[in-house]
Amino acid sequence: MKRTIFFLIISSLLSTSGNILPQSEEIKLSAQSQECIDCHSSVTPGIVGDWKKSLHSESSVASAIRKNLLEKRISVKEISKIENAGTAVGCYECHSLNATSHADNFEHFGYKINVVVSPNDCKTCHPDEVDQYSESKKANANFNLTKNPVYNLLVETLTSTKDFLDGKTIHGGRNDSAIGETCLNCHGTEIKVDGMMTVKNALGDIEVPRLTNWPNQGVGRINPDGSKGSCTSCHPRHSFSIETARKPYTCGQCHLEPDVPAYNIYKESKHGNIYESKEEEMNFKSVPWVIGKDINVPTCSTCHNSLLTNGDGEVIAQRSHNFADRLWVRIFGLVYSHPQTKTGKTFEIKNADGLPLPTTFTGKIATEYLIDAKEQKERLSKMKSVCTSCHSTNWTENQLGKLQKVNEDTDKMVLASTKVLLEGWEKGAADKTNPFDEELELLWQNQWLFYANSIRHATAMMGPDYGAFKNGWFESTKNIEKMKNLVKVLSKK
Amino acid sequence: MKRTIFFLIISSLLSTSGNILPQSEEIKLSAQSQECIDCHSSVTPGIVGDWKKSLHSESSVASAIRKNLLEKRISVKEISKIENAGTAVGCYECHSLNATSHADNFEHFGYKINVVVSPNDCKTCHPDEVDQYSESKKANANFNLTKNPVYNLLVETLTSTKDFLDGKTIHGGRNDSAIGETCLNCHGTEIKVDGMMTVKNALGDIEVPRLTNWPNQGVGRINPDGSKGSCTSCHPRHSFSIETARKPYTCGQCHLEPDVPAYNIYKESKHGNIYESKEEEMNFKSVPWVIGKDINVPTCSTCHNSLLTNGDGEVIAQRSHNFADRLWVRIFGLVYSHPQTKTGKTFEIKNADGLPLPTTFTGKIATEYLIDAKEQKERLSKMKSVCTSCHSTNWTENQLGKLQKVNEDTDKMVLASTKVLLEGWEKGAADKTNPFDEELELLWQNQWLFYANSIRHATAMMGPDYGAFKNGWFESTKNIEKMKNLVKVLSKK
Amino acid sequence: MKRTIFFLIISSLLSTSGNILPQSEEIKLSAQSQECIDCHSSVTPGIVGDWKKSLHSESSVASAIRKNLLEKRISVKEISKIENAGTAVGCYECHSLNATSHADNFEHFGYKINVVVSPNDCKTCHPDEVDQYSESKKANANFNLTKNPVYNLLVETLTSTKDFLDGKTIHGGRNDSAIGETCLNCHGTEIKVDGMMTVKNALGDIEVPRLTNWPNQGVGRINPDGSKGSCTSCHPRHSFSIETARKPYTCGQCHLEPDVPAYNIYKESKHGNIYESKEEEMNFKSVPWVIGKDINVPTCSTCHNSLLTNGDGEVIAQRSHNFADRLWVRIFGLVYSHPQTKTGKTFEIKNADGLPLPTTFTGKIATEYLIDAKEQKERLSKMKSVCTSCHSTNWTENQLGKLQKVNEDTDKMVLASTKVLLEGWEKGAADKTNPFDEELELLWQNQWLFYANSIRHATAMMGPDYGAFKNGWFESTKNIEKMKNLVKVLSKK
Repeated sequence: MKRTIFFLIISSLLSTSGNILPQSEEIKLSAQSQECIDCHSSVTPGIVGDWKKSLHSESSVASAIRKNLLEKRISVKEISKIENAGTAVGCYECHSLNATSHADNFEHFGYKINVVVSPNDCKTCHPDEVDQYSESKKANANFNLTKNPVYNLLVETLTSTKDFLDGKTIHGGRNDSAIGETCLNCHGTEIKVDGMMTVKNALGDIEVPRLTNWPNQGVGRINPDGSKGSCTSCHPRHSFSIETARKPYTCGQCHLEPDVPAYNIYKESKHGNIYESKEEEMNFKSVPWVIGKDINVPTCSTCHNSLLTNGDGEVIAQRSHNFADRLWVRIFGLVYSHPQTKTGKTFEIKNADGLPLPTTFTGKIATEYLIDAKEQKERLSKMKSVCTSCHSTNWTENQLGKLQKVNEDTDKMVLASTKVLLEGWEKGAADKTNPFDEELELLWQNQWLFYANSIRHATAMMGPDYGAFKNGWFESTKNIEKMKNLVKVLSKK
Repeated sequence: MKRTIFFLIISSLLSTSGNILPQSEEIKLSAQSQECIDCHSSVTPGIVGDWKKSLHSESSVASAIRKNLLEKRISVKEISKIENAGTAVGCYECHSLNATSHADNFEHFGYKINVVVSPNDCKTCHPDEVDQYSESKKANANFNLTKNPVYNLLVETLTSTKDFLDGKTIHGGRNDSAIGETCLNCHGTEIKVDGMMTVKNALGDIEVPRLTNWPNQGVGRINPDGSKGSCTSCHPRHSFSIETARKPYTCGQCHLEPDVPAYNIYKESKHGNIYESKEEEMNFKSVPWVIGKDINVPTCSTCHNSLLTNGDGEVIAQRSHNFADRLWVRIFGLVYSHPQTKTGKTFEIKNADGLPLPTTFTGKIATEYLIDAKEQKERLSKMKSVCTSCHSTNWTENQLGKLQKVNEDTDKMVLASTKVLLEGWEKGAADKTNPFDEELELLWQNQWLFYANSIRHATAMMGPDYGAFKNGWFESTKNIEKMKNLVKVLSKK
Repeated sequence: MKRTIFFLIISSLLSTSGNILPQSEEIKLSAQSQECIDCHSSVTPGIVGDWKKSLHSESSVASAIRKNLLEKRISVKEISKIENAGTAVGCYECHSLNATSHADNFEHFGYKINVVVSPNDCKTCHPDEVDQYSESKKANANFNLTKNPVYNLLVETLTSTKDFLDGKTIHGGRNDSAIGETCLNCHGTEIKVDGMMTVKNALGDIEVPRLTNWPNQGVGRINPDGSKGSCTSCHPRHSFSIETARKPYTCGQCHLEPDVPAYNIYKESKHGNIYESKEEEMNFKSVPWVIGKDINVPTCSTCHNSLLTNGDGEVIAQRSHNFADRLWVRIFGLVYSHPQTKTGKTFEIKNADGLPLPTTFTGKIATEYLIDAKEQKERLSKMKSVCTSCHSTNWTENQLGKLQKVNEDTDKMVLASTKVLLEGWEKGAADKTNPFDEELELLWQNQWLFYANSIRHATAMMGPDYGAFKNGWFESTKNIEKMKNLVKVLSKK
């Protein structure tokens, strides 16, 4: 800490560039944004303060595009058509974009303002990132649930209110609010505009659009301009901080136990330990992100999507906002592990049973919709480049090679539980009409959604307790025994 | 980080006031406290070091009362009767107060010293805070458990040791030590003085009071002077740091999963994500606490009790140490959600069944003891003022409006499980004599204490996984099925 | 924060020694290590960067041995036989040691290099630490599992893949990869050398040893030179940071819920709360570690093994790398609580039933293998010295005294569940041939491995929720009822 601070002091005193001392070229605010801030700094001081601390407040599109290729944070090639390209990226510069396509656009003190800034708006300066993202499972996360009848049934079954009458459970039907607060909170809601509403404040009565299914910043949000996704899922407004996106807490909002315990396992891993211990020594703001200089230890984004170089400026990995680009196999098995899907639209899959799932309930893989061995090898190779920045080839190959075996093992454990379920259905211990609503069936969901996922992630990211006692082999083994005994005592045959 | 440090450096070099450079008015230590420190700096170096880094060590009552109203950290109006008002707030200044009311007062090297500094002692300088606190459920947390026969039975049932004999569970009776280590650890024990004991150290034999049910810093602790509460629950001795109290870890000591998962849900929320990412950029020490300047993102205390202003010094929310002041509904349902209680003394409630609970077991609300719609609206309005510092009115109303629906939904889920319990009692699957001791009854407790609470907090504070898979709808649904099957296999009719 | 930074600035500007400004004696790199770094800074920039920020990079053995006794970080007495004692502790200085005993030694660009640096290599400069560690349960952690047939059966049962056929569970046999990813990930694998492999990179084809059961940094790892342990378990390569080892995240890699929830309980304790709030104010790098100056609040290593002094340089506790040195009782009960074992080799124990366990299944203690009351008192006394640095004698004795009662209580709860298990075996609800593989038996494991451990740790380290609802009395009570009902419905007699 002491040493870090010393170097920061010295560098801050000597430096004449960078974002520590005022940049020689002063970036002014546009007249429009200045007008926004005049009111909003007292009405909504939090977001104005947040923006003032952001890089947007001290950058213009024109200054950003002049950076060297590796240092560049925008990917637009031609800025002549961008309004206010020479002023700071302020309120108006983002909230006024593509007004005609925005159902949430409204007249606000003489300006046409959108409530929600969408990926399509961010695309004005960041087209490569938005295009990559659009291909991902994340961008399609709402459709992947809502347009998939199997998952839809699962979602509706779990979130309906229940009543108990004459020894039977009565389901209360689709519960949109509960779905919005659970599954779609991460997957993204479809934001709609339901007329206008009046807000009363010191400035008088102000008419604004009334949004529904809002607030939400799920990764596959359907926006009022029809675009998909929410950049603020990871770059929270109004700081839009690359630092926040690079820290594991961001991913941990959705990728956490019990269903996708990636964040929890990272935290208990050696990587997570060093991260928590040395977080203050690292530099989360520099672009490119230099291994051995900025990065003492990887975070989620280091391995999965950031642009990385070594100290000589050689690129180790290219930036990508399609988060499957360095992933060859899907360990968040549904219901078995399988190669990554060819596209982000998993609802378009048809397996051998005609269901929109990457595998059948007994494990047959929907090959046609999944990437082939060659593509798997290429993606594996990208991940290896990251690992070998710190680890030997032997280390890396052993570590990544473990995934094949743990996937086979957990798939066997899921299959064993499926066999118990099938016997339960056959013997009347549960009714297969809805495969998700009875105790035996819910235990089966535990087997793949919690236990298999945990064991696989524990190996992939080196957090042994999630493989052992915490939703790991212990629970997975116990669950099969529990299901077996349940079938025994409930069987009618 | 770099920028933050740069500004800290510049401001530290230029500043001639504030707590960075030595204050122009030097605060001396009293002769009494100097004598304490002469020995204790080598005998108990930890607490002396802690105090030396505290604001108490560099403030006197006289200097503290001269601050501007919004900057003031003490609320006493008249200090002429306070001993040593001109010297630092040291050991003696706190440990010597109200000696005659302290059963734990003892002669110590010529001074009359209290072991425990109580809220009534802190009240010497902080009367408003102590008065507000005294009205809260926190201050009454010991009584709310121990003077409520229903909760008392629950507590005794869970914490008694068990034996197994002739197929039956034998309960070992009230287990005070276990209760002190579990429920009363947060709720507060009753500290008693059990004579004197001799401590042998380098200074010879020292006679000190022997306290029992100690150590404890539960929020409703009964102190040796008869006062209730423990300021060190949130402002840990001997730094008494406002920074610590404002950080979420403090609340997380007691408000955590599985029963009150507020802290855990905060951590997985967008707010928590930004907090963990930007904690170092925030200023947790300034009074008042300025949104957009000191505060990048809210912590527990931002929304629930801190004094907040905008950058123009306009008050957004007044400080309160009654933590229900901005709460209109109680989502920690016992056993259903309900309006906040009128007073902090929940043990005085009588519901329609004559039990000291805010609702009956089937959900009827004890209206007379709960705040009315008008009071609810006023408290809701206070909370809205905080939210709208960063969010739009539409955003805020939608978000806070969700609570109504999720409370109704979870109350239905609790009622369904209660119906299964009633059927189980009726059919002999469990014996209702003690409603808390058998498997079916313990599963029912899971339904309201873990699952309903989690789902409600998940909506309130935007942590979707606690609403979905982690003690959420998934577990709540499974639990009803589990109870149903248990009744089926255990029924004697 | 502000104040801390101010003092760091001032001290950095004034100081002419310490590790802030360049040391007057410049430490050079050896010619051999320079050659390593010439390639590896671009090939594996992460580990080179890590090392450059380490104390090793700016220290030589000769400079380290000149420190005062309390400040010394090496324990070797005589350095004349150490190669390169005057240059920085670089790559070659560690990876070339004791080459002839290393099965993983290989020819690498003209040097004889070991892949794995083992405790026996670290012993060159740190003999006292390695000797202490060798006596510990940690160093023997692999053998304590693999050479204990009872634990071995447990491990093999849990980690075998399962199939379900004709109503029966079929176990797939020993699963070495799963064991390596779970139990042995913390306990340590046995690393073997399986010939050589070719690595292709910019420098051409490079022949390196192919290690198996690798990567692993478990505490009881068996290394290719036959030594036991892995210093990088706590001092991660290549920073070997004392700061990391002193922070609780390190211990939390293995000592976490549900089986050993020490880290989780620390986090929810008052200690953990203050730590998380004040982490940035503490100094984790200084040796000795001064209470009240460097340490605001204890971490795991403060209480359990660090060298501590007060501000006058008086030693409060001596450093030890045998982590049982300040522990008198073992609360990680197997299967009951018991005095600490005499040696770290628990597999050598024989209890009254002839099993290698410190107690029998019904709680009889294997006295001969456990420390006696006198030794218990001495170790308790060491722990008390740490506590009383901040707490009174009364406080300390009460707090540590609670352990006796909670151990008795939890042992009773385990015994009750054991009695249910025995009845279940007797009535045919489970088959005792393998005591670990059926639902009833797995619930019994929950009772001691999860619930008893949690309740005990919750008292020891003051985290009440793990004693109450989170794997505490609630679950422990429910589990007995669950086991009882399971016996009822599965009994064949």
